[in-house]
Amino acid sequence: MAPKFKSNLELVKQVDCFPNSITEPEAFSERMADHARLMYLSHTVGYIIPSVLEALQDKELSGEWWEFTPGVVRLLGDTEEVRTKNIGETLDRWRKAKRFQVLSGWRNEMYTIYAPQGKPCFIMERSATPLFGVIAYGSHMTVYIPATATSPMKLWVPRRAAGKQTYPGMLDNTVAGGMGDGANPWECIIKEAGEEASLEAEYVRAHAKAVGYVSYFYVRHKEAGGEAGLLQPEIEYCYDMVVKEPSEGGPVPRPCDGEVDEHLLMDVEEVKMHLADGKFKPNCSAVLLDFFIRHGILTAENEPDYLEIYARLHRRLEFPTR
Amino acid sequence: MAPKFKSNLELVKQVDCFPNSITEPEAFSERMADHARLMYLSHTVGYIIPSVLEALQDKELSGEWWEFTPGVVRLLGDTEEVRTKNIGETLDRWRKAKRFQVLSGWRNEMYTIYAPQGKPCFIMERSATPLFGVIAYGSHMTVYIPATATSPMKLWVPRRAAGKQTYPGMLDNTVAGGMGDGANPWECIIKEAGEEASLEAEYVRAHAKAVGYVSYFYVRHKEAGGEAGLLQPEIEYCYDMVVKEPSEGGPVPRPCDGEVDEHLLMDVEEVKMHLADGKFKPNCSAVLLDFFIRHGILTAENEPDYLEIYARLHRRLEFPTR
Repeated sequence: MAPKFKSNLELVKQVDCFPNSITEPEAFSERMADHARLMYLSHTVGYIIPSVLEALQDKELSGEWWEFTPGVVRLLGDTEEVRTKNIGETLDRWRKAKRFQVLSGWRNEMYTIYAPQGKPCFIMERSATPLFGVIAYGSHMTVYIPATATSPMKLWVPRRAAGKQTYPGMLDNTVAGGMGDGANPWECIIKEAGEEASLEAEYVRAHAKAVGYVSYFYVRHKEAGGEAGLLQPEIEYCYDMVVKEPSEGGPVPRPCDGEVDEHLLMDVEEVKMHLADGKFKPNCSAVLLDFFIRHGILTAENEPDYLEIYARLHRRLEFPTR
Repeated sequence: MAPKFKSNLELVKQVDCFPNSITEPEAFSERMADHARLMYLSHTVGYIIPSVLEALQDKELSGEWWEFTPGVVRLLGDTEEVRTKNIGETLDRWRKAKRFQVLSGWRNEMYTIYAPQGKPCFIMERSATPLFGVIAYGSHMTVYIPATATSPMKLWVPRRAAGKQTYPGMLDNTVAGGMGDGANPWECIIKEAGEEASLEAEYVRAHAKAVGYVSYFYVRHKEAGGEAGLLQPEIEYCYDMVVKEPSEGGPVPRPCDGEVDEHLLMDVEEVKMHLADGKFKPNCSAVLLDFFIRHGILTAENEPDYLEIYARLHRRLEFPTR
């Protein structure tokens, strides 16, 4: 059987897979019919799927910190601190009861969920964010060697550790990591560059460049770890960093914290091939396609789905953000 | 009185000013209450404001090529050719009757309006597109000299001709132009680079780089020419072109077709100042802010409205596209 290669649009659809209310209003309404909105004042901060709603409504299991009206869930608590404490109590109970597999990947990393005007609404354990369909933030960096007259552009591509909990063995962006409470995107990428790729902070500060962000609404596959179908809208700040060839003194990313098995130097055609072959972690495909569009590798003339791909990589989410 | 400088978010709000159904659902519904949808099959291809709806419903004035149901207008005709002929007849009559000021800027340039899957739905006179709230396409290029150790980044900035019909005397992107029927974004920017800035086609082909697009939903100010309040959703393909300093042999853009009075070489701080001072044509501000974000000049750390600015520069429109 011939291998089935994925188009770039198919790659984007794997990561931006929750129906869009603007372009697919009927599919969106249908999907939302059995989802509840997690609301703070008049703002929706996340979507809750039926299996999570059911757990929340079980007061013995989840506690009495939740208020339910048709289609709407509210986390009780008058201040950020109280709301943070309340959701923390619920999550501790779920974890002890092994109620959701996804919590077996407990990280002890706190993520901030925002109210309007960038004010924190509450803070919660990272691994639980997809249970509430709230926005998770991260920073991703593409480290590359520009094309020359005789050599194509090359990208540094890590292979995730075979033993990693999520997407083991898949290809990744050069540096990538989630952004915990109190962090900012720039410090996040510098820290991750050290931890994941042994790149010196001083070097990264001098050479990395902020280039925007990608946003999408991911519905988790089983490779993400935990239950399939959990909701994970994300905003990933993107950075580019130009480096020289190793033979010319350019830095060589090296595994450091055990999250990565090896760093490969691939030219653009190899990266495209591995993308089409489904070898990259889904949201890393999104970052790479954005990189290809910003660098004139994918264009309106060579990519029939150019407009839709780029639009979906910059999806507007209805939730308040940082 | 102290001058009132505009924030970057205010600049974006000037060009993306139609309510967004995702983030402002109530304002969107309220606005749409008296607008009709221009529909083709089950797809909305434009929005029609009350004054235009009234003109369309006057059969003596506008002909019998329009069908009305509550909130919906359809252009009759079973084929693209017939629909194109029918809307053309209506527009000719409006023009002769001087029914809309905006048609005094008649261009004799045909723009394509798309059905799903990028198929043309009909073709129409450029100056009339804001009467139907259909997507207009264009290409914009930022020509710049990168920063060096001793010199900041500089951009080539044209001043529009004082006698130009739209936005006379305002600052603009280095090269910019609308994309007529049958054109593609790349050929469009090469043609405009010659016509507006005397840049040689061969040079532009070798040095310009596609870098994505900006999209927004503009509601026309009076400076756009014609009636204020007309609807102009747009997709502008963006290109960057690195050049050398003129003193090092870099090309110098020169006025050519009378649309531009002069080309100025400004450093980034000057461009920012003129942006804040409202000196740039609104959609050129959008292209420049996207450029600043892609080049790490505006970042999540130095621009409090970073997420919203970039999201609004990549607005998803509900209409089918190329």
